[in-house]
Amino acid sequence: MEVYFDNSATTRPYDEVIDEMARAMKNFYGNPSSLHSIGVSCDKQLTDAREFIASTINSTKEEIFFTSGASESNNLFLKGLTKPGNHIIISKFEHPSILKTAQYLEENGIEVTYLDVDINGQIDLNQLKDSIKKNTVLVSVMFVNNEVGSVQDLEKIGHIIKENSQRAKFHVDAVQGYGKLPIDVKRCSIDLMSTSAHKLHGPKGIGFCYIRRGINPVPLVHGGGQEKGLRSGTSNVPSVLAMKKAVEITMSNLEANYKKVEELKEYFIKQLEGINDIRINSPVGDKFTPYILNVSFRGVRSEVLLHMLEEYGIFVSTGSACSSKSTKGSHVLMSIGLTDKEVDSALRFSFCDMNTKEEVDYTVDKLKKSLMFLRRIKK
Amino acid sequence: MEVYFDNSATTRPYDEVIDEMARAMKNFYGNPSSLHSIGVSCDKQLTDAREFIASTINSTKEEIFFTSGASESNNLFLKGLTKPGNHIIISKFEHPSILKTAQYLEENGIEVTYLDVDINGQIDLNQLKDSIKKNTVLVSVMFVNNEVGSVQDLEKIGHIIKENSQRAKFHVDAVQGYGKLPIDVKRCSIDLMSTSAHKLHGPKGIGFCYIRRGINPVPLVHGGGQEKGLRSGTSNVPSVLAMKKAVEITMSNLEANYKKVEELKEYFIKQLEGINDIRINSPVGDKFTPYILNVSFRGVRSEVLLHMLEEYGIFVSTGSACSSKSTKGSHVLMSIGLTDKEVDSALRFSFCDMNTKEEVDYTVDKLKKSLMFLRRIKK
Repeated sequence: MEVYFDNSATTRPYDEVIDEMARAMKNFYGNPSSLHSIGVSCDKQLTDAREFIASTINSTKEEIFFTSGASESNNLFLKGLTKPGNHIIISKFEHPSILKTAQYLEENGIEVTYLDVDINGQIDLNQLKDSIKKNTVLVSVMFVNNEVGSVQDLEKIGHIIKENSQRAKFHVDAVQGYGKLPIDVKRCSIDLMSTSAHKLHGPKGIGFCYIRRGINPVPLVHGGGQEKGLRSGTSNVPSVLAMKKAVEITMSNLEANYKKVEELKEYFIKQLEGINDIRINSPVGDKFTPYILNVSFRGVRSEVLLHMLEEYGIFVSTGSACSSKSTKGSHVLMSIGLTDKEVDSALRFSFCDMNTKEEVDYTVDKLKKSLMFLRRIKK
Repeated sequence: MEVYFDNSATTRPYDEVIDEMARAMKNFYGNPSSLHSIGVSCDKQLTDAREFIASTINSTKEEIFFTSGASESNNLFLKGLTKPGNHIIISKFEHPSILKTAQYLEENGIEVTYLDVDINGQIDLNQLKDSIKKNTVLVSVMFVNNEVGSVQDLEKIGHIIKENSQRAKFHVDAVQGYGKLPIDVKRCSIDLMSTSAHKLHGPKGIGFCYIRRGINPVPLVHGGGQEKGLRSGTSNVPSVLAMKKAVEITMSNLEANYKKVEELKEYFIKQLEGINDIRINSPVGDKFTPYILNVSFRGVRSEVLLHMLEEYGIFVSTGSACSSKSTKGSHVLMSIGLTDKEVDSALRFSFCDMNTKEEVDYTVDKLKKSLMFLRRIKK
């Protein structure tokens, strides 16, 4: 049996997405910047995709821009909207494409406030309010944390920002939330948002970002002037169309998938009950997404457990894929206050709508066997 | 009959490339940063692709990096290797992803020298030599010009740079040359090189760049640390594999394709002989690539002619795709010294190995008809 429980690292594209990619590579290979009809028809495909995607987040198509993915979009916003002397606010457990970029900004004269996160992975709203200053130009918060799965109350955060600043823009890294939880940029006062298609069974190397009308970041990539001058480079029409297909499928099943995965996570946690000395780091409830289950198996090094599960065909993660090769412990799990032992023994199981209870049964069985072995040899 | 003579704007992917993309999206969907075997096998695919690609330009696999394409790579090098007070040298007819980026650098305290280009599209080598200063950190020259098809003598340019500076790096925008003409980064003393896969029947949204060992540009995209920290963002394995397939096909037919297209261009020019008042802006010979034929049809607005040809199913370009929607005349054709009339009446026919003499016959026939009509109504 092969069990892929690493859907927060990346997902397997839907078959329809692969078909659409092949179809679009054949039929829409033109350059949308060309004057002739082959170019024009490709440009129309881009516009249609923008319009459809805009409808999924309550924006307009003029506010949707295509990039190579969320790492690029996150860099675009942080670098393109700040100048020396500015101040930005992020949380302590953002994705590396925010955290490392913020560190780079600090080296270049921009002040950064790192918001604390509580044991439930919620940012400190009072601290947010108190941190907003006259020179605050950006607040960047991730919708769903990629390692522990905590969900922020974007409406409340947006409200606090707009109540306390006319200048500060609200950016949401929505990579792990978009396509899984509903999101409304107007209702939440979101000014900027980043996504990647490969997290929702779409292709890699493509994503869209939302930029509220009137906001003009300095481009990361200057050149031919594609994406209204914001992101140059020949438009990747086939990948945009394949992403659109993934979004169509995902959005039409949003609620059903949520319910299915929620039941799966509840079932998983119930099956774990018999195992001693564990900690559920992302319990069921509205503070955490059902798509991520993070568990510490105290006394066991998570990497060892990961490789034992792998022998059984079960694929999970220690932290995020990005940080999994780092020797330091997860900054996310440390930020929410886990002990060193809990950080070192944490596994992330991340789900998609194609996972089943049978896969959970199989996994828990192999988990128990592996833990028994590992804990026995330790004694 | 449908004739696609706009291969410098973008190409139709080879069927094998489309198949490889679909296969890789199915079989290598994993995240190479993951610790488990699904990730590890994807990472191995990346390494194999790097090794193969390195062999095509005489570099090592450690010097090959994947980006979203040449616009990104060009921006990475120009922005990532310069600081206020530095000096760079580019030619006047570079691609917008170099020219606009250079203008952005100028606004940020970096000095830029723009080299003149002669009527054969060759940069002024004496001017290059005289322009190199103590604070020159980069010389960026395109291998094959995208509008007029002129080919630079990279070996000579590399020699001049290295003879006159120990500091200045040599960057080559090889988008229109790689896969069509042989290129050897060692022999030409090239330090940095940019390419895009979609110009050689590969997928869009992917390219590779070459960075000589020891050169460390500041990343455009910070984050998870992919590509040895130089370009963060989940690795796009399927697109890399599809690009590799395109490179394999292209490289194994490099000489045969060149010969075929050279004959095609010669034939095309011969067929044009009967038409009055034209100027061949990219004649046959070693100063111009056979893949591009740029012709001015004096007294006719190129855009009108383009749309008339389009009615017959013939797809060409006025200038580059990037600049085709601009109302200003082509900066490239102006830089090589064409008159305004010649600039406004220029069409670019750009070929690939799949084009035929029959397509040329058909095109020249329709060209003659269209010109007769347009020139008659003008009188």
